[in-house]
Amino acid sequence: MTIGKLDAVTIDCADPLALARFWAAVFGTEVASAEGAGPTYVDLRPAPGVPTLRFQRVPEPKTVKNRLHLDVAVTDLEEARAGAEALGATRVSPGTFDEFGYRWVVMADPEGNEFCLVLPPEEAGDG
Amino acid sequence: MTIGKLDAVTIDCADPLALARFWAAVFGTEVASAEGAGPTYVDLRPAPGVPTLRFQRVPEPKTVKNRLHLDVAVTDLEEARAGAEALGATRVSPGTFDEFGYRWVVMADPEGNEFCLVLPPEEAGDG
Repeated sequence: MTIGKLDAVTIDCADPLALARFWAAVFGTEVASAEGAGPTYVDLRPAPGVPTLRFQRVPEPKTVKNRLHLDVAVTDLEEARAGAEALGATRVSPGTFDEFGYRWVVMADPEGNEFCLVLPPEEAGDG
Repeated sequence: MTIGKLDAVTIDCADPLALARFWAAVFGTEVASAEGAGPTYVDLRPAPGVPTLRFQRVPEPKTVKNRLHLDVAVTDLEEARAGAEALGATRVSPGTFDEFGYRWVVMADPEGNEFCLVLPPEEAGDG
């Protein structure tokens, strides 16, 4: 028995609209809905292969490494890192990881949520 | 500039294969890849609207409420709750939430990762 479909991946944060704009730029999508000027929930419009990302205002700060994170597939790791940093991301891992054919760096979004920029095997094999 | 595409939503866990099987049942998909008998990474086959879910073995346990969680859209909240519990989920919220047209309950997967069973506005409006 299937329980359901994915409605959204929801991300707790302090500033939903600002964080939504960062991730919209990462995936080339846009803010789809936000109620009012200081919204509790902000949804991004789903993009091909990207489900709805939902940003939810919460009072508590981030304290530990997230148990869930997004892996972002890119075609050029250095270019993607520079682009993400220009949008407000920071680098978490000093180096680059290579495992199971993947090559990746660990980054953090403007609220410190870890994510990986990933060169999948078919791309990493070219490097 | 778009940085990349979503490669996967990755979930830290103690037992990737067991947790992957739980989530495969939730979304009606299946384990796509796992290396060996005690794999570090297990990927689920993406389903319509569901990106690749990747389960990654980590040594550290879950300590606080996750900052990222999955919202699972269902058509019958009680039936979905019972079905998820039969698969090994537990209920986190004693009651049901109603906000912005959504109705939902907070659950936890077998490793304690919070997720919501969500009746979207078009369904909740019927109830």
